[in-house]
Amino acid sequence: MPAEAGMGAVVPLGLKAALDEIAAEVDRGFDRLLPVPNDPRRNLYEAMRHAAIGGGKRMRPLLVRAAADLFKVDPICSGRVGLAIECVHVYSLIHDDMPCMDDDDLRRGRPTVHRAFDEATAVLAGDSLHALAFEILAEPETHPDPFIRAELVTELGRASGPAGMAGGQMMDLVAETETFDLPTVTRLQQLKTGALIAFSLEAGAILGHVPPEGRRALRGYARDIGLAFQIADDLLDVEGQEELTGKAVGKDAVAGKATFVSLLGVERAKAQAAMLVEQAIGHLASFGPEADLLRAIARYVVERDR
Amino acid sequence: MPAEAGMGAVVPLGLKAALDEIAAEVDRGFDRLLPVPNDPRRNLYEAMRHAAIGGGKRMRPLLVRAAADLFKVDPICSGRVGLAIECVHVYSLIHDDMPCMDDDDLRRGRPTVHRAFDEATAVLAGDSLHALAFEILAEPETHPDPFIRAELVTELGRASGPAGMAGGQMMDLVAETETFDLPTVTRLQQLKTGALIAFSLEAGAILGHVPPEGRRALRGYARDIGLAFQIADDLLDVEGQEELTGKAVGKDAVAGKATFVSLLGVERAKAQAAMLVEQAIGHLASFGPEADLLRAIARYVVERDR
Repeated sequence: MPAEAGMGAVVPLGLKAALDEIAAEVDRGFDRLLPVPNDPRRNLYEAMRHAAIGGGKRMRPLLVRAAADLFKVDPICSGRVGLAIECVHVYSLIHDDMPCMDDDDLRRGRPTVHRAFDEATAVLAGDSLHALAFEILAEPETHPDPFIRAELVTELGRASGPAGMAGGQMMDLVAETETFDLPTVTRLQQLKTGALIAFSLEAGAILGHVPPEGRRALRGYARDIGLAFQIADDLLDVEGQEELTGKAVGKDAVAGKATFVSLLGVERAKAQAAMLVEQAIGHLASFGPEADLLRAIARYVVERDR
Repeated sequence: MPAEAGMGAVVPLGLKAALDEIAAEVDRGFDRLLPVPNDPRRNLYEAMRHAAIGGGKRMRPLLVRAAADLFKVDPICSGRVGLAIECVHVYSLIHDDMPCMDDDDLRRGRPTVHRAFDEATAVLAGDSLHALAFEILAEPETHPDPFIRAELVTELGRASGPAGMAGGQMMDLVAETETFDLPTVTRLQQLKTGALIAFSLEAGAILGHVPPEGRRALRGYARDIGLAFQIADDLLDVEGQEELTGKAVGKDAVAGKATFVSLLGVERAKAQAAMLVEQAIGHLASFGPEADLLRAIARYVVERDR
């Protein structure tokens, strides 16, 4: 898987086009969102742009778009929600890379924000993107129905706060000193990366006016690709190449952290990821070809090399 | 002013009761919001409770309540909005106290979060409170009308993000190496502390269904007390007592930062603050005794000793 296959070899043409298109769209969105002011806040905006523009797989915005398209949502709406989620994702990377957290010098092949600027600017750039995410979601341009906008905000707050992403990051810190078993590592990852991936798909359904009881298939799909995504990340940390991932590899082993790979071994971890992908695709059985992009994404999640 | 007058001497009975009541209400709110889970996220919640419960003047929640009461808003609504704003205020203090920012060991008379826990926990505790703020605002319990909830979220995002509080904090960092003139210091403070104070009053009006054009008086009041509040803070940094303020004093001079006091001198700064208070009270001329609490707060803002 990861180490053997290059992008060109495994990404189907339709998915490749969708990935390229969403990446360009997200970059344009950040460029518009973050005009550099001619005042002492200049560096704050430069730091946000450094972190946000021109990098990343943009998986979450693509998941929002793919889910929203199932329900024929205006792409302007799903684009804005995708940008808001990417704001949260990027802010979490900026803070997570800081010396007191994961202490990373490299992200998406470039110096991390606290290296390119300084730690204080990294704190504030993360906080600023965090606030912008909610501002974007709540603005009328995101959806004409304020019920929908308020629900998006509530759900993003849950997915990113202490009961979601931030809680998972806390567990990840504790994992450096305590030895977690498989259920605890699973829970950690469901919070740390799973919650925001789940929200990305849920957001597509919310935009499509799908009531909670109609979101079961997408939730199952989200849960499965979220875990598969993380197993693939753990595998990339063991088998990946820094030139492709754009970040340091081999860090989990050095930190002595329990991961899916350390607990299951490489072969069983790969089998588990493959099984989760099939299960994720199984959840989409009630959809026709309109869900082909989601099916392709599920396969890509474990086949990617970065 | 600050150094001479103790709380008992200057706080009128009605304001004292209102301050005590809102402080107890905010503490109860945080206690309910942050139950400590029995899992590896325990320290994250303990850190949030350490920072959020049992301290602070709770000026912003009191301003929301006082403004909302003008329009006979359900106190449950104004209480929830006040709690959300206090989440943002507390998150900003946690991050601002970190070694890479202001490097403070003491806050509200207790060790700062990164001292009582560690820096990584401080980053995540701040991020978690930040997310909770928006979640609280957007939940149906905050107001039955989703238009109102969405507007509150948009405005809080603006007030706390790079065009508001976070932008002001960035200017404050730059102030350590560049010499700012009075208009730039004024702009810095309007963003750093003024934006969240202004949102507190605006939120009361939003909850009361007051359209933007009807908020002019409260906006003027907010702008004036925001600046007066900051001048008083600068004076406390020069003349205040650490036992009362609960944080280190004399820091601005050591850092060589331009402040209202360094630019105007103590006497002119005091006169300016007093003028701003009278001007703030002048903005309330169209209100009757129902605005007496706001008038008392305006006076308290410069007369407080902590």
